[in-house]
Parts: sequence; C-alpha cells; structure tokens
Amino acid sequence: MARDWLALFADTGAELTCVEAIRARHARGEHHYDGPLPDAVLFPTSIDQVCQTVDICRKAQIPIIPFGAGTSIEGGVTAPAGGLCLDLSRMNRILKLRPEDQDATVEAGVTRLQLNAQLRDSGYFFPVDPGADATLGGMAETRASGTNAVRYGTMRENVVSTTIVTGNAQIVRTAGRARKSSAGYDLTRLIVGSEGTLGIIVDLTVRLHAIPEAMSVARCCFADLRTAVECVTMLVQLGISASRIEFLDEIAIAACNRDNRLDLPERITLFIELAGAPHAVQSETRVLAQVAAENGAEAVHWASDPDGRQALWRARHAAYHSCLRLMPGSPAFSSDVCVPISGLPDCVAQTRRDIDREGLLATIAGHVGDGNFHVLFLPDPKEAGQVTAARGIYDRLVSRAIAMGGTCSGEHGIGTSKRLKLIEEHGEAGVAMMRAIKSALDPHGILNPGKVLP
Amino acid sequence: MARDWLALFADTGAELTCVEAIRARHARGEHHYDGPLPDAVLFPTSIDQVCQTVDICRKAQIPIIPFGAGTSIEGGVTAPAGGLCLDLSRMNRILKLRPEDQDATVEAGVTRLQLNAQLRDSGYFFPVDPGADATLGGMAETRASGTNAVRYGTMRENVVSTTIVTGNAQIVRTAGRARKSSAGYDLTRLIVGSEGTLGIIVDLTVRLHAIPEAMSVARCCFADLRTAVECVTMLVQLGISASRIEFLDEIAIAACNRDNRLDLPERITLFIELAGAPHAVQSETRVLAQVAAENGAEAVHWASDPDGRQALWRARHAAYHSCLRLMPGSPAFSSDVCVPISGLPDCVAQTRRDIDREGLLATIAGHVGDGNFHVLFLPDPKEAGQVTAARGIYDRLVSRAIAMGGTCSGEHGIGTSKRLKLIEEHGEAGVAMMRAIKSALDPHGILNPGKVLP
Repeated sequence: MARDWLALFADTGAELTCVEAIRARHARGEHHYDGPLPDAVLFPTSIDQVCQTVDICRKAQIPIIPFGAGTSIEGGVTAPAGGLCLDLSRMNRILKLRPEDQDATVEAGVTRLQLNAQLRDSGYFFPVDPGADATLGGMAETRASGTNAVRYGTMRENVVSTTIVTGNAQIVRTAGRARKSSAGYDLTRLIVGSEGTLGIIVDLTVRLHAIPEAMSVARCCFADLRTAVECVTMLVQLGISASRIEFLDEIAIAACNRDNRLDLPERITLFIELAGAPHAVQSETRVLAQVAAENGAEAVHWASDPDGRQALWRARHAAYHSCLRLMPGSPAFSSDVCVPISGLPDCVAQTRRDIDREGLLATIAGHVGDGNFHVLFLPDPKEAGQVTAARGIYDRLVSRAIAMGGTCSGEHGIGTSKRLKLIEEHGEAGVAMMRAIKSALDPHGILNPGKVLP
Repeated sequence: MARDWLALFADTGAELTCVEAIRARHARGEHHYDGPLPDAVLFPTSIDQVCQTVDICRKAQIPIIPFGAGTSIEGGVTAPAGGLCLDLSRMNRILKLRPEDQDATVEAGVTRLQLNAQLRDSGYFFPVDPGADATLGGMAETRASGTNAVRYGTMRENVVSTTIVTGNAQIVRTAGRARKSSAGYDLTRLIVGSEGTLGIIVDLTVRLHAIPEAMSVARCCFADLRTAVECVTMLVQLGISASRIEFLDEIAIAACNRDNRLDLPERITLFIELAGAPHAVQSETRVLAQVAAENGAEAVHWASDPDGRQALWRARHAAYHSCLRLMPGSPAFSSDVCVPISGLPDCVAQTRRDIDREGLLATIAGHVGDGNFHVLFLPDPKEAGQVTAARGIYDRLVSRAIAMGGTCSGEHGIGTSKRLKLIEEHGEAGVAMMRAIKSALDPHGILNPGKVLP
C-alpha cells in the first residue's frame, strides 16, 4: 500500500509519507475527536508540485485534503473518503511585503504570527487573529476572523487575491491588487470560505493595516448578562471604533481565576480595546465610560500601557483552555453562531436559560462586537444523557440564531460537523446553488470531499 | 409580433410593452450609443411576477435583460440577442429600515437617493455614491462605488445579502444579516458584480453608516500632476480617514469654469473631504495641511460649513457634463482603470504623455484615493483618425494598469464593451472559471447574455 502511494507521486518530487502517526496527526484539528485518516500525506514546496499532484489525483480519482496548521475546529481536515492530505506548511515563504500599497503576498503555509514578525518595525500589521497561529491559507479557506473583526473585518475583507490550483490542475489568480474592481465575477470572495472544496490556495495577497498610535483597554463587570450585551449593542450603534469587544461570562472568569491564579471579580465581563489616534482614543474613552456607567457597569478598569493591557487581556486569552479544564474528559464542543447585533441580548439570554434548565456546565464567551459568541458545552462524561441534552440546546441555539437573521457559523466554518445546518440556513435552493458551483469547479469531486456541502 | 409577447406573459399580471420608443429608451444607459433593442419591456411589481417571467423565458429560451435606472456606462442594458427587458423600477418599496442593526432591506428598484431621503433624521445614511441616482439593485449588479469608496467601500462591502431569482426560476436568499459568516460559499459576493448574468436581484439588504459629526473639505491646487498624486498616495498611506479624495486635472477645471461661471485656478486640483468626530477631523486637518504643503500644494481652501462645502464640491460634481461640452458631438468614452496606489503617479503621468503626444483632447478625473481614475476621451468627430488614436491610448492604459496589478474596471463593470479586457486581466484560466460558474447557474443561458463573459 505505502509503496503504491510513493510511486504514484514520485514524479512530483515532493516528500510523501504513509506513516500512521503522521497521517493521524493530519486527521485532527483542534476539535476533540480524531477523524478518518488520509492514506498518505504529501508536503509540496512549490505551485508546480501542487499542480502535478492535483493532476495525478484527478486522473486517479483521489480525494485531496488541504492542511495548514491543523487548527480547524469543525473537522475540515479529516479524510472521510481517505485520499491524500496536502500539507502546505512547507510553502511558507513571504513573497512580497508592500507597505506602500498596504498589502503583502505570501505562500499559503505562512502563519499569521510569522507574517507579523516580518512586519515588525514597518508600522503595519495583519489584523485577523483567530487565536491559534493558523496559516493564512487555512484562514482564508475558512473565512476566519477572531477578536478584532469588529474593526478590521474578517478574511473576507482582508484577502485581496488568491492564487489557486483548480480541480482541473489549472492555476488561476483570482484578482489583481487594486483596492476595488468591477471586472467580472468575484472569484476571490468565492474561494475565501470555500474550505478547500473549490480550489487549493497556494498563495494569497492580504491587506495590511497601520498600527494604531494609541491604545487603551477597559475591563468592565456587569451584574447581569443582558445589560452587558446591551452595553455592547449601544457602543456598536454609537460607532465607537473599538478594535475588540470581547465577552466572558462569570463561569469562564471563575475558570480563568482558578487556572491562572488570577483574582478577577467573578462577574459577567467585557474587555473593550480602543485604538487609533491619541485624540480619538481619548474622546472615545470618555464615551465608553459614560455608556458603561449608564448600563450599570461596575468596576471599570483601564490600562493604556503595554504591560497593563497585557495583564487585562490575560484572562480572555486563557479562557478557552481554562474552561476546558473545568470538566476533564468532557466531549466538549463549541457553538459559533453570529446574529444581527439587535438580537444579541435575547439570543444569549435565552441560551443561558436553556443551559441552566438542563443543569449543564457551559461557558459563554465571544466576539460580541459583531454579534458572534461561542457557547462551550462541557457535558459530564459520567452523566448519561448530558451529551444529548447539550446537542439539543446547540440545535435550538442554531435555529434561534438563523431565525434572527443570523448564521450557524460566524468564523469556524462548516467542515464536516455543520453540513446539515447549511440547509437550515440557506434553504434547499441556496444549497443547490452551492452544489452547482461545486460541480462546475470540481467536476471530478476530488477537492476536500465530504466538507461544507450536505 | 407585439401580440405574441403580450400573450406569452399575460399570466404574470405584469405590464408589458412593445412600443419602440420605450424599447429604445431601455436599450441605452449613459454611454453615447444606442444598443440593440429588446423585443419587449416588462414591468414586474413582485418577486412572484419575476419568478413566473423567468420560468416562461426559461422554457421559451428568451434572453432577460434586467434594467434599473438605465445609468449603465458599459452597455450593460443593451439587448444584443433581443429578448425581454425586465424593468425593475416599479419594485421600489423600502421593506425595512433597521438603524439598530445598521442595515436596510429594499426592493431592487429603490434608488440610493430614495433610500437616503427615507433615512433623513435617522442619523444614518447609505454611503455608496456613483454620481447618478442609480437603483440599488443595479449598483449591486455592477459592484458600483464612487466618490467615497475610499472610506466606506464599494457595493462589495455594503451589500449584506440579496434575494435573487435564478435562471431556473428559483428564489435564493444569498445570506442572512449577520455581520460575518463562515457558513458556505459567499453567494452574496458572487452575485454582486455579476451584472445580471447569474441571477436577477429582486431585493437586497445594504449596510447603513452613522452620519459623521463633523466634516471639512479642502481644495488644493498643484503645479503638476505627479506631486498631486503623490500627495494622495501619502495621505492614504498615513491612514488619514478621508471620506473622499477626488482629482480633476486643469482641463477639467477649465471646462467647469467655462460651463458654470466659476473662477477656479486652472490647475491640477484635489478635493479632499475629512469626516468623523470633531476632534479627529481637527487633528487630521492639521496633518492634511502639512502633507499638502510638503507636496508643494498651492492655494489650499477649506470649508467646514455646509454651504461652503457645497460650493467647493460644485466643480467636481459638474465635471463630467462640463467636460463633455468641451467637444460637442464627440463620440466620447471613458476609461475606468484602478491600480494599486503606489502605481498611480506613473500610471496617470504616462497616460497624460500618451494623450498629449497624439494631440487629443481628454480630461482626467477620478476617485484617486483608491487608485481609480477616469480618462474622458473626447475625440474630434471631424478629425479622421482621432477615434482610433484614442482607442489605442485606451488599450495601452488598460494594459498598463493590469501590468501594475490593477484592473480594467474599478466601478463601471464590463458590460458588452470590455469583455475582451477580461481575458487580459484574468487570463484564459480565470475566464474559464467564470464561464463554468455561468453555465452552472444559468444552464439555459437566458440571463443577460452577451454581457461580462467574452
């Protein structure tokens, strides 16, 4: 078996392995389960090798699963039909930095921290920050975002162009580098978020942003969830140019305290970062203080020096892993809904009631500035029925978000986990349209099969 | 003939006409020529009527040409294969204003001025402004932008979702209203800019923006074109949050003076609008004054009251029609390239040299803040060879822009006029990908045939 795979791809010149441990590592992301393994893992180092590989797979009908840093949360890197995992992490050259045009072109395997390290001292940075040090190719494929999308947008807004290899082994550059264009279909936006099912991103051009001159962070505690979320809603509606508006509920704060020897008030907490010209930050600081007070915020702590800001953010950064440790061995899973901002207070409150009614452990955190929040369900593995109860709440949450005009996924993608939710969200006709596009662009069905589409 | 068309669509209940004058009016946009006429014009008033109409056209293989306000510049509304013009201007209800979510849902025939009139006193506005009072459906279909895209983005960024009728007469809502989503392919962005070739937009949800508290406009004159454009480049790179950075060359200013009894210095001129919180506008005003002085600007005039601002903008608003009057009877045409900002000085300067070398009359104006500028070619109809010479310069300009990483169309679309440029810009493989999408989503080939794709 192993020998066949080696022979098949020998001409590409790329390294290939069938070692089980390596295949297993490539079949899992940051979700809690192992997916079906690919038959082999190939490590291309050039576009040419990717093209040759796709051409071989096309002729032999072998599924291709692109792989970056392995930080997928929704099963995007599993191999439900076996096939070849294409590990793009060795295509990690920064091809061109152009501060004068506020863009950079990188190979798909470059990670966001690698790019930002290279940009140090340029006065610019790449803002999209999903937490994990994901590859930019992978982030584009899942239309990732993270803490500062409220200010800088998601990968949808920050990918200028991609170079892809299509299912027919053709190279297509999906756009030029102009800031705007009306020249034909928006292939770039079609590829961004397609999770490797329409083409394999081999390099991409991303937007850079000027590093703000001044920055200030506030941590505000609230007596109840609704007023905290209403405070966020008001800030967004006032057009406060916050770069992050993050939310942790009291259970998440308690988990952070316990896990990191912190001593934060165990209340519902917002972390709000203002950034911009010093004058603007100063005046927005005043507005924020006023809005927070009007919404009954207690204990507003400010920090504007780097160390103080770091300390304030510590809990938010540690939250996910601290929360997981609340219930060791739990088959934990997270929701990722995003709703129009006016629906946020109700959506969060109703979900909390659902959780409490079932007596489940779950924390709520998220990027509430754009209506996106995550419920981390932590069913007790020793209590029969808790997983089923949690799944039920999750399903109701997704239906609630969609009914409000929201989405089942704000930033994690669909992967294998949420494919049925896609029908609930887009209807049969919308999904049929997506299927028609998939068939047209991947007629052999070899690009990440079993993902996105139900 | 007329009776057949009436009978064919009688069941839809929508008004239909075959009167030649009406068909002729529907075959022309704001370009200088009349295109081939449709056989009939239908005026639907509901989604249901559009669906029924598409279904009839699908079965009878009748081309459908969507029509809004008739402001297309690139022949988007002509009927090269005859067929049915679908005039959506009677679908002009504002369905829902949601200031709390900063969005609004409107039927496709609502114009931008109609929406903004309705928003008066709400504190919000819809920013995309292509000059003409186009319909929002039409603006979405051409991915339009205009003077303030540098701050607010284009229709790509400002369309949240669309409802379309597909070539199979299905209704698809392309997205919900969440600010971000990773749930499947980005159908909204695929439809935006597809010029009616992939689906007919029947309603859409657009983003609203808070009206800035303070505003200030500067008019700066420059001795030469390169320093003016370099001044713009520097402002953009400094992240000055200008809401408009507009450019008129000295010939356009002279035309405005003559046509509007103005007395502006006939120099290369920038119009720059700053907008935001009062503090921010004040501090950016200082930066702008400094950058302009460093770049040798002469005669910087400021206005911050509404009347003064209006007066400063007068020339810019009048420019297009004033320039056309420089050469009555000219088969005038305009370019629409957009380049990465660092290439802008060279691209404009080389084009001006080309024009002068041929002794042609042409004005240069544009939204230079995002690298987009228009050359209005005014060949003398009495001078043999001028049209050919102008076409040659136009072709070289497009090639120059594409070679710089730019695009042949920043905001006007492809229509019928620029279809061959699409290959130059996207390559055969890119256009093949667009063709595959077109065939998949419009298998009967009835949606605006002969547009966009070569």
